Amino acid sequence: MAPAAPRTGEAIFASVERVNAELFTLTYGAIVRQLLTDLEEVEEVNKQLDQMGYNIGIRLIDEFLAKSNVSRCVDFKETAEVIAKVGFKMFLGVTASVTNWDAEGTCCSIVLEDNPLVDFVELPDTCQGLYYCNILSGVVRGALEMVSMKTEVTWIRDMLRGDDAYELQVKLLKQVPEEYPYKDDE
Amino acid sequence: MAPAAPRTGEAIFASVERVNAELFTLTYGAIVRQLLTDLEEVEEVNKQLDQMGYNIGIRLIDEFLAKSNVSRCVDFKETAEVIAKVGFKMFLGVTASVTNWDAEGTCCSIVLEDNPLVDFVELPDTCQGLYYCNILSGVVRGALEMVSMKTEVTWIRDMLRGDDAYELQVKLLKQVPEEYPYKDDE
Repeated sequence: MAPAAPRTGEAIFASVERVNAELFTLTYGAIVRQLLTDLEEVEEVNKQLDQMGYNIGIRLIDEFLAKSNVSRCVDFKETAEVIAKVGFKMFLGVTASVTNWDAEGTCCSIVLEDNPLVDFVELPDTCQGLYYCNILSGVVRGALEMVSMKTEVTWIRDMLRGDDAYELQVKLLKQVPEEYPYKDDE
Repeated sequence: MAPAAPRTGEAIFASVERVNAELFTLTYGAIVRQLLTDLEEVEEVNKQLDQMGYNIGIRLIDEFLAKSNVSRCVDFKETAEVIAKVGFKMFLGVTASVTNWDAEGTCCSIVLEDNPLVDFVELPDTCQGLYYCNILSGVVRGALEMVSMKTEVTWIRDMLRGDDAYELQVKLLKQVPEEYPYKDDE
């Protein structure tokens, strides 16, 4: 039997179980507030959000592979496109685009057109160093690590910091094919 | 113009922005894990989850009133039905039922038929006193307080603790009509 065709992010998003986005937004806000209270240092909160995202990403990749019918990507370029077009749509319901490739094809930016995490959010002056959405960079990093791509993911633009978009830079550090956790014939 | 008819939870849920339920579940799991690490005492985690839920509830009520077209409920009985039938459906996409009313009509139980917060969750032995879903009781308490009902909300049954359902007891302590934050003609 021929393998099923990859599904679009829209189609998957429409078919999976979902919860109200405002509940998610407020719940995420409650986490950030809690971390700010407990950890005090903004830099520590950034780290912790990234780590929480990483832990989520290494589990979310299973749902992604199971629901999307995406097979192994040929290279990092294709992987970045799949994250932007299928991954962000499937989980957050938003569209993202890939841009700013370097000459080697190992570094690019994912630009979000919408970001449900930040609805109703305004950062007080005391939180100026905060990367409020750092959980997302952690999710991308964790998910990619499970498909053998060690990456560094950082925010280049952040509208909560006054920029005109949300831009995540994804830099491929190392690719380790043999760690890929699934065999093709499984 | 006649006021718009109240909308069903299903209709509202279908029309609002949503995110993937697994992402929500994993994000909530990350909060609980974080609190367990930071606070150490399970009892403190229960309190903190309840407080986070309360903070969410006092904001979520606005979205609820705006989207549901539910007007002021006649009494606590009607309020409980609206929470179960419209509120839980609208935010979590699940159905709940109201049962176990006391003779005075001031105490009842909301029984959840499904609970997306607990997918894939198993509590280790070290967390036996944890009310994993305590954020939900806080949300209900916070939302009700904004419509002038002081309540006490406690878990009576919890499947993570070996019970056969999720049952939230909601006890009305005090009703303060004049604190209602909206005027009828607004």
